[in-house]
Amino acid sequence: MAGNSFGKIFKLTTFGESHGLAIGGIIDGCPAGITIDFDAINKEMSRRKPGQSAIVTQRKESDEVKFLSGIFEGKTTGTPIGFLIENTDQKSKDYDHIKNIYRPSHADFTYDKKYGFRDYRGGGRSSARETACRVVAGAIAKQVLPEIEINAFVSSVGEIFIDKPYQDLDFTKIESNAVRCPDEATATKMEALIKETRKQGDTVGGTITCVLKNVPIGLGEPVFDKLHAELGKAMLSINAVKGFEYGSGFCGAKMKGSEHNDIFNTDGTTQSNLSGGIQGGISNGMDIYFRVAFKPVATIMQKQETIDDKGNKAFAEGKGRHDPCVVPRAVPIVEAMAALVMTDFYLLDKVSKSTDL
Amino acid sequence: MAGNSFGKIFKLTTFGESHGLAIGGIIDGCPAGITIDFDAINKEMSRRKPGQSAIVTQRKESDEVKFLSGIFEGKTTGTPIGFLIENTDQKSKDYDHIKNIYRPSHADFTYDKKYGFRDYRGGGRSSARETACRVVAGAIAKQVLPEIEINAFVSSVGEIFIDKPYQDLDFTKIESNAVRCPDEATATKMEALIKETRKQGDTVGGTITCVLKNVPIGLGEPVFDKLHAELGKAMLSINAVKGFEYGSGFCGAKMKGSEHNDIFNTDGTTQSNLSGGIQGGISNGMDIYFRVAFKPVATIMQKQETIDDKGNKAFAEGKGRHDPCVVPRAVPIVEAMAALVMTDFYLLDKVSKSTDL
Amino acid sequence: MAGNSFGKIFKLTTFGESHGLAIGGIIDGCPAGITIDFDAINKEMSRRKPGQSAIVTQRKESDEVKFLSGIFEGKTTGTPIGFLIENTDQKSKDYDHIKNIYRPSHADFTYDKKYGFRDYRGGGRSSARETACRVVAGAIAKQVLPEIEINAFVSSVGEIFIDKPYQDLDFTKIESNAVRCPDEATATKMEALIKETRKQGDTVGGTITCVLKNVPIGLGEPVFDKLHAELGKAMLSINAVKGFEYGSGFCGAKMKGSEHNDIFNTDGTTQSNLSGGIQGGISNGMDIYFRVAFKPVATIMQKQETIDDKGNKAFAEGKGRHDPCVVPRAVPIVEAMAALVMTDFYLLDKVSKSTDL
Amino acid sequence: MAGNSFGKIFKLTTFGESHGLAIGGIIDGCPAGITIDFDAINKEMSRRKPGQSAIVTQRKESDEVKFLSGIFEGKTTGTPIGFLIENTDQKSKDYDHIKNIYRPSHADFTYDKKYGFRDYRGGGRSSARETACRVVAGAIAKQVLPEIEINAFVSSVGEIFIDKPYQDLDFTKIESNAVRCPDEATATKMEALIKETRKQGDTVGGTITCVLKNVPIGLGEPVFDKLHAELGKAMLSINAVKGFEYGSGFCGAKMKGSEHNDIFNTDGTTQSNLSGGIQGGISNGMDIYFRVAFKPVATIMQKQETIDDKGNKAFAEGKGRHDPCVVPRAVPIVEAMAALVMTDFYLLDKVSKSTDL
Repeated sequence: MAGNSFGKIFKLTTFGESHGLAIGGIIDGCPAGITIDFDAINKEMSRRKPGQSAIVTQRKESDEVKFLSGIFEGKTTGTPIGFLIENTDQKSKDYDHIKNIYRPSHADFTYDKKYGFRDYRGGGRSSARETACRVVAGAIAKQVLPEIEINAFVSSVGEIFIDKPYQDLDFTKIESNAVRCPDEATATKMEALIKETRKQGDTVGGTITCVLKNVPIGLGEPVFDKLHAELGKAMLSINAVKGFEYGSGFCGAKMKGSEHNDIFNTDGTTQSNLSGGIQGGISNGMDIYFRVAFKPVATIMQKQETIDDKGNKAFAEGKGRHDPCVVPRAVPIVEAMAALVMTDFYLLDKVSKSTDL
Repeated sequence: MAGNSFGKIFKLTTFGESHGLAIGGIIDGCPAGITIDFDAINKEMSRRKPGQSAIVTQRKESDEVKFLSGIFEGKTTGTPIGFLIENTDQKSKDYDHIKNIYRPSHADFTYDKKYGFRDYRGGGRSSARETACRVVAGAIAKQVLPEIEINAFVSSVGEIFIDKPYQDLDFTKIESNAVRCPDEATATKMEALIKETRKQGDTVGGTITCVLKNVPIGLGEPVFDKLHAELGKAMLSINAVKGFEYGSGFCGAKMKGSEHNDIFNTDGTTQSNLSGGIQGGISNGMDIYFRVAFKPVATIMQKQETIDDKGNKAFAEGKGRHDPCVVPRAVPIVEAMAALVMTDFYLLDKVSKSTDL
Repeated sequence: MAGNSFGKIFKLTTFGESHGLAIGGIIDGCPAGITIDFDAINKEMSRRKPGQSAIVTQRKESDEVKFLSGIFEGKTTGTPIGFLIENTDQKSKDYDHIKNIYRPSHADFTYDKKYGFRDYRGGGRSSARETACRVVAGAIAKQVLPEIEINAFVSSVGEIFIDKPYQDLDFTKIESNAVRCPDEATATKMEALIKETRKQGDTVGGTITCVLKNVPIGLGEPVFDKLHAELGKAMLSINAVKGFEYGSGFCGAKMKGSEHNDIFNTDGTTQSNLSGGIQGGISNGMDIYFRVAFKPVATIMQKQETIDDKGNKAFAEGKGRHDPCVVPRAVPIVEAMAALVMTDFYLLDKVSKSTDL
Repeated sequence: MAGNSFGKIFKLTTFGESHGLAIGGIIDGCPAGITIDFDAINKEMSRRKPGQSAIVTQRKESDEVKFLSGIFEGKTTGTPIGFLIENTDQKSKDYDHIKNIYRPSHADFTYDKKYGFRDYRGGGRSSARETACRVVAGAIAKQVLPEIEINAFVSSVGEIFIDKPYQDLDFTKIESNAVRCPDEATATKMEALIKETRKQGDTVGGTITCVLKNVPIGLGEPVFDKLHAELGKAMLSINAVKGFEYGSGFCGAKMKGSEHNDIFNTDGTTQSNLSGGIQGGISNGMDIYFRVAFKPVATIMQKQETIDDKGNKAFAEGKGRHDPCVVPRAVPIVEAMAALVMTDFYLLDKVSKSTDL
């Protein structure tokens, strides 16, 4: 199927099902000589990890990354970086009841139809567990490009949202609460909503906003591989994502050109930034910001009517340990995918001009 | 820069600047033996063409497509299809005044910075003229996959929007008005708004909704090349696009799982379709629908402060003939990009299962 | 660096250094529903394995393949197949003496210059150990396409060569001797030469011929991805390979057209087959055959003058356990790479014609 | 079919049949700011052109290249370079007699089988006319990388070959005779052989040797995209090529390691160069040299038995104007493909090390 690679030069390929022996990946194209900060990688992994707080799934996955190649004496060698995360807390029996059942709004039905059968344990390849590999690669990408600051945070849960522009937020507070919302008053309300939702055996959606600062001018490869097009694809490839907008986004569609145009300062910066840091698919040096919509997790702790693989009526009811709201744990995934995109475009841009040669 | 190809198997590569000799492209990977309907291609081209109605730019481009290879005795041969559209109505002098000026919210500044200089005539490669090649390729893709019905339409202009679900619309009315809005009352208001906006020398944004019917089950290549991720990238790569959502989209982020889940019927269809026809990145046979946000055109007929390439203050004022609102002409472009994505995934899916071999 | 993937649809990506924790790979794009014969994979692995006979290196590597994903209940699932081979017999100390030394005709110098430093243990990524992953993937490819018979064998060692056309050989005898030469009298001489060469602390080159039977007509993707061009690249990417020829090869360059042309029989087969089963880059259904030249292994058990990484004179002398002649163990590698190429083109050809859709 | 692109970053995609309206291509990824020397391009084109001397086909093609985009005020803009060569001397009627006939050792049969039918005029896509586009792109690649000197020449025709190492040849003499053989005495014999062969209505094969000097150290991307593997693929993708060897090539397979190893000088150069300038798939700064085998042209001016597309016996006899020996005109094609490979790897290598960033 060949859809498991991401990036052109800095390229991640991943493998692994939720309840197989392991998940993992290969990063090909990482420049040699980068000193790897393993603590930084582990820190990102623990941000994505189940069981990290009271509002996320209580599965216990060690999520320990084992690097198998491509790093020697602490530095990248320029050869492919193979890595592995073993699946230690596999309770496959939790899934015996769904073996022949298509859970509503899951990928059970489509995988069966596309491939003829499926590894039904824990969602198999369609499980969000796969995103752990993205976080590993993203953490390395961040080390290739340390100057670009990437900050994602939860901007809404259900109907609760931060009612401020991102410029008024203190990003150092993102990790100060379990929701990963830098606005503390809003975070408290979000946390309460998530807890209440879980009590009802239900789930709730949300949005994540991501802001990139100190982006070099010139990244992005028009006309098809525009910077925002790749960022959009990257975000839409994350489980449960339903929408992506950058800069003025859907609001921009309601505006007039005279309001929307960003007027230049003499130093090439702009007075406003409705463009979201990208013009014609190429970064202009202003902040890049975008927003990603996540649907509510499909696994709910309520009995739902559904069908089995013979087309008979059946019932599905979530068992096991699931997230009532996916956005708090998705924050590091959004950052990781952003880091992958930016690093790849950074490397591609190194040969744009004859003066680079 | 190598960002000018789209698709894996059914692959389009394009070239051409707004005011060069010609634009064109190569379609590689089109199956052999498809009888080409040239009228259908021309019809799509005329939907995108300038000067087609009172509410679009009055530039006169013939937009005649010349096919140079890959078609013999009316049928595709399996070899690359080269095509050309000459630039006949080049008024390059219209652009002399912007030679050294960075127009606000255009790509002038970023192209200059990325490449060291730019072809300033008519926006060069960043001109929306480039999208004509997409329409050619999309029209051929539609002929490879005639069973998938693709209908895009204008769903909002500025603050005016269709206040009905797409199921209540009559798609045969899309072409009945200049705006390409199937709801006639709304179309009338939109048209009035666009005319009013133009009178003010201003521009206005809008959204396009696209609906795909009769989609085979099983298209899309998880985990990175999910069907909606490629659709999103395809749409975001179109000039002026700021956002993409499919199915429940950003609204879904406000919902509960118990509301959002699509309950199966015994035939595998679903009662609701908040998923937007895609589960886990793979089509499930239900309608695929998505919405694309376009910002207002940056070129306005008003004097705006800006800078030149030395950082001196300057003024920009739109000259020439520009669209007051881009969405009516963008409808066929959205359809074309959707057709390219669907055709590519259709071909890729032909080898998903051992029973295909 | 991104050079560690092979194939377009059936795509192998590998990682791993000779003396790291493990080597391994990911096969993406394997169709779902193939029942995997693990014994067949192990059999191929044991053909490549060190220590298998008296004339190869006596290193003891278990070369046990662990599959981590993509296979469920014995069948491929269509998702990426991750696999791992642990490095168990790492005698890294054998390599301390070459830490700062550039061995003649090894990749030490070039890796250092390209990447700034290198993992010097056992040749790192440039070690032929990497090819074990190709054998794993090739063994699976053979199971996707069981109808194509692939037989490689040693056709020469040093000056000793088989003096018969391949049609006169009995391929069932390939595995009957340690050299993998189906002509027994020649095999005996080759074996004696290899032993004699080893006694001298020297190494010797050789050639491998590979014959593909029952190839479907129509495989290959002109103009750049011609079938023989990809076969050539595949073979040249194997360690120590210096040349590739197919069909009449270099001899064909001496011939007249009237001698060289293959005259058709009425069933579409040809009377002669100097074309080597490929016309215009596309298989014609006749046997494909090609020959691959391997240089003598660079590591010899003799003292050689060389330099260190500061440019000082130094001496290198092979330690450890090395092959006196690489071709016997390279036979399964040649077959594996051929299988990867044929499988990829087989899948690509499934959408060549409108009648395939 | 998607086999019509070559290169990763500096990427050429071509289209066009021998007797269609035009052939052409798109170069995507050429760095911006390169001043294009159009005379140098035309010079390369005239080296490939029919009718240039008494020993090549007397077809008259103007082979004039028209650049359509990507070059502005004489310099590359970083956007795709579209170009076109019109087919002016189409004598399609010359081919009516082969409409339903499969010529021996041509691609008629395989194209028909793969695609269901074919553009039979002049060989369609399988015609060597396609290589004109490669020469255009190669000529531009040479201007991106002027420091690498690329010299190809005819090293044998039939049984006549240059009996000297390339170091003893004067490359300035390559263009001094119609054969493109720098050794004049040998050139005279070759020319006589070609003329004699043509008189007989026959054709003859030959080899081309190519030498690359001043190659930067570090080009090539192991393990699959080794420098010589891509060079090999590039050469094998040229019409009529049957073999490729570099450095010691097939002779190396007969040698001992003690003879074959290249001993280092203290400056990192080597005393001998049997490696052919590449170690482990990466250039080492020494000359790269390789040899390419071309079969005799299949179109001969003799009556040959063959079959038609119904399987009936038929006769084919070359009409029109064909080359009695392809190698003199193939010299610039070999150089062009070498230039494409080297330029692509040069650009890729720009991000191999952290110190490049």
